[in-house]
Amino acid sequence: MAFARVYMDWNATAPLSDAARRAMLDALALSGNASSVHSEGRAARAAVEKARRQVAALVGAEPASVIFTSGATEAANQVLTPDFRMGRSLLSIGRLYVSAIEHPAVREGGRFPAERVTELPVTRAGVLDLESLEAALESHELASGIAMVALMLVNNETGIVQPVAEAARLVHQHGGLLVVDAVQAAGRMPIDIAAIDADFIILSSHKIGGPKGVGALIARGEALMPSPLIRGGGQEKGHRSGTENIHGIIGFGAAAEVALEGLVEHQAHVSELRDQLEVGVLKAAPDVIIHGRDVERVGNTCFFTLPGLKSETGQIAFDLEGIALSAGSACSSGKVGQSHVLTAMGFDPEVGGLRISIGRTTTQEDVSAAIAAFKKIFGRRLPPGEAA
Amino acid sequence: MAFARVYMDWNATAPLSDAARRAMLDALALSGNASSVHSEGRAARAAVEKARRQVAALVGAEPASVIFTSGATEAANQVLTPDFRMGRSLLSIGRLYVSAIEHPAVREGGRFPAERVTELPVTRAGVLDLESLEAALESHELASGIAMVALMLVNNETGIVQPVAEAARLVHQHGGLLVVDAVQAAGRMPIDIAAIDADFIILSSHKIGGPKGVGALIARGEALMPSPLIRGGGQEKGHRSGTENIHGIIGFGAAAEVALEGLVEHQAHVSELRDQLEVGVLKAAPDVIIHGRDVERVGNTCFFTLPGLKSETGQIAFDLEGIALSAGSACSSGKVGQSHVLTAMGFDPEVGGLRISIGRTTTQEDVSAAIAAFKKIFGRRLPPGEAA
Repeated sequence: MAFARVYMDWNATAPLSDAARRAMLDALALSGNASSVHSEGRAARAAVEKARRQVAALVGAEPASVIFTSGATEAANQVLTPDFRMGRSLLSIGRLYVSAIEHPAVREGGRFPAERVTELPVTRAGVLDLESLEAALESHELASGIAMVALMLVNNETGIVQPVAEAARLVHQHGGLLVVDAVQAAGRMPIDIAAIDADFIILSSHKIGGPKGVGALIARGEALMPSPLIRGGGQEKGHRSGTENIHGIIGFGAAAEVALEGLVEHQAHVSELRDQLEVGVLKAAPDVIIHGRDVERVGNTCFFTLPGLKSETGQIAFDLEGIALSAGSACSSGKVGQSHVLTAMGFDPEVGGLRISIGRTTTQEDVSAAIAAFKKIFGRRLPPGEAA
Repeated sequence: MAFARVYMDWNATAPLSDAARRAMLDALALSGNASSVHSEGRAARAAVEKARRQVAALVGAEPASVIFTSGATEAANQVLTPDFRMGRSLLSIGRLYVSAIEHPAVREGGRFPAERVTELPVTRAGVLDLESLEAALESHELASGIAMVALMLVNNETGIVQPVAEAARLVHQHGGLLVVDAVQAAGRMPIDIAAIDADFIILSSHKIGGPKGVGALIARGEALMPSPLIRGGGQEKGHRSGTENIHGIIGFGAAAEVALEGLVEHQAHVSELRDQLEVGVLKAAPDVIIHGRDVERVGNTCFFTLPGLKSETGQIAFDLEGIALSAGSACSSGKVGQSHVLTAMGFDPEVGGLRISIGRTTTQEDVSAAIAAFKKIFGRRLPPGEAA
C-alpha cells in the first residue's frame, strides 16, 4: 500500500516492542538448549531465568512461581483442570465457574468436561454480577471437590476492568481457587497478584509487545499446582515439558520489563488519545453506543456499536482506509462473528461492534487519521432505521 | 571464553540456520495476528501458510495435514490420547504401545493413563524387537479400542534408524494406528510419510535449524484426528487453539526448506566427518564401545561408552576443552542421569555414554579439535578395571 497504515488492533496483538526485538536479535545468537549442562546450555538457562524474573515482576509474583507456556491459551488449558496436586496428594476441583465474557480459551473450560462448567452472568454495564457469583458459590456442592472461578481482569473486547479483588474475597470465603486471565490488563494497569488475591494469573507475551507463541501461568505459591498438560522431559520443574522457547521467552521478558517502565505515565497518554478518538466517533455519529464508558476501563480500548453499520462492513471499510481495527476478538481463523461479550451484556446477538485498541506507540497523527476515516465511513452508512 | 567453541550437541538442539535467522528477522516486521482479517492479519496468515507448505514438503505430506504446535513434546501429548474423532464420531484407542527407547515426551504416554501404556523391548543392537511388537498386537484386546503404536524413526541418543515401515505393516494388519516421532530423522535422511506408512508424524523445528518453541503434528489424512489438547479460539482448524507463533512458524518453514536442499550430499559430508571422529575415538581408546555401529544409523551421531570414564566427568572435561557434547539427552533441567536407551539395549543401568552429534556447519577443524580433546581427556582416565 502506498500510504502509511494505522494499526489500532493492539488487543489482537501488540506490535513487537523495540526492546523485545533487540533482546530477540541478541537471543538468536544463543545456540544452546537450556537443559544442556555445557556452556551453551548454561547461557541459554541464564537468559530464561532472567526473563522469569522480568515476567514475575510484572505482577509482583515470585520468579519461582512462573511457568512459561506457549501462550495464554495453553496456560488456561493447563490451570483449568479438575486434577490438582498438593505435593504428592491429589486434590480434585469439583466445578469451574467462568464469567460469560471470558476469552474462548477460558470459556471452553480447559480440561473440565462441559457439564462441570457453569457460566456466570455479567451486568448490562459489562462487569461480572457478583451476586450471581456469591449465589453460585453458596450452592456449590463440595462433595465433588472445591470450586474454581475464572475471571478476567480486563475484558478483551470492551477493556472493562472486572471486580477481581471482590470476586477473590467471595471465592476464598468459600474455600475455592481464583484464576485470573490478566492478558489484556498487563502493561495497561498495575497488577499485583497479592493485592488482587489471585491464586493463578495467566499472561500472554504478544499482547504486551513481546513475541507470539509464549505466555505464562503464574501461581500465587507453589504448594497447589495443576497436573501437567504437556508431559515429557520434565522442564519447568515438571509442570510443563518441552524444550524451552528461548528467544520467545527472552523477548517476553524484555517486553515485560518495558511494560512496567513508566506504566502510569504511558497509560495516561494512551488514555488521552483514546478519549480523543471517542470524541471523534461521537462527533461523526452522535447515535453511537460506546460500551463501558460509565465503568472502569483500561485506557487503550474503545468498543462501539453504530446503528446501521455492520461490523464486517465497518472493519473492511476501515482496512481500505488504511486503519486496522477489529470487529471483536481475533481468536479463530478469519471468523467475523457476533460478539459473545455484547450478547452477555444483554444486547441483541445481531448487534455487532467495532473495537479500536491502541498502545504506547500510537501517535496524535494516527488519531487524526482515524477520526478522518470515521467521518468518511460513517457518512456513507445507511440512515438509522434503514439498516439491512 | 578466549578460544572458539566447538558445538557437537546438534541432537539436543541444532544451531539456528542462516535461512531461518533471515526469515525470522523479516518476520519480526510482521505486526499482525494471523487470525485478524485486516491487511496486517492477512500478511501474517500468508506467511504461516507458506511455512505450512515448507514443513509438509519435508515429509511428503499435504500442507492441510500439518498442525503447528509449540514443539514436538506438545505434538506427542496431542496425538497420544485415547480420544480420537472421525468427523463427528468418537473413536477410542484402547492401548498405547511404545518402544522402550522413545523420547520421554512419547514414553510418558501423553494423555493415556499409565496402566494403558505398554513398553516394547529393543534388541541389544538398539532396534525395536518386531517379534515383540507382533506378539503385542496379536494379544491386543480390541474391546477397549484399537491399538496405537509409537515408534521413533531415529533414536535421539544413538542415531539408530528404527524399522518403521516394517512396524507400520504389522500395525496396519492389526487395524491400529502408527505414530512416528521423526524429530531426529528430519534433515538427516529423506522422509516420506506414505513410504513409511505412518498415520502421524511428529516434528521439531529446533532440531533442524529452526527456532525453539515450534513443532508440528502431521497427519496422513484429515479423517481421523485426536481430540484437541489445547482448546480455545479454534486456530489450526480447531485442532490447536492459541494465537499462532508467527515468527517461530516462519523460521521453522525456512529451516525445513533448507533441510531438504541438497540433503543427500550434505549428509554424505556429515557422515564422513562423523566417521573420522569415530576413528579418532577408537585410536584414543581402543576399548571404546560405539553403539549402533553395525546397524543403520543417521550420519551425524556417535554415541559411545568408554570403560573408566563416567559420563558426567567426560561431559564436563569436554566442556572445559571447549567442546559441547552430551551425556545422553538434554530433556530435563540439567539432569545428567543414566541412559534409558542403553538400559533398554541390555546394558547395566550404571553404564553411561557420551553423545557427539554434528551437522551441516560442522567443519574439518571442529573434528580435529574434538580428536585432540579425545586424546587429552581419554589419556587422563583411570585404567580400565579401576573405574569408580
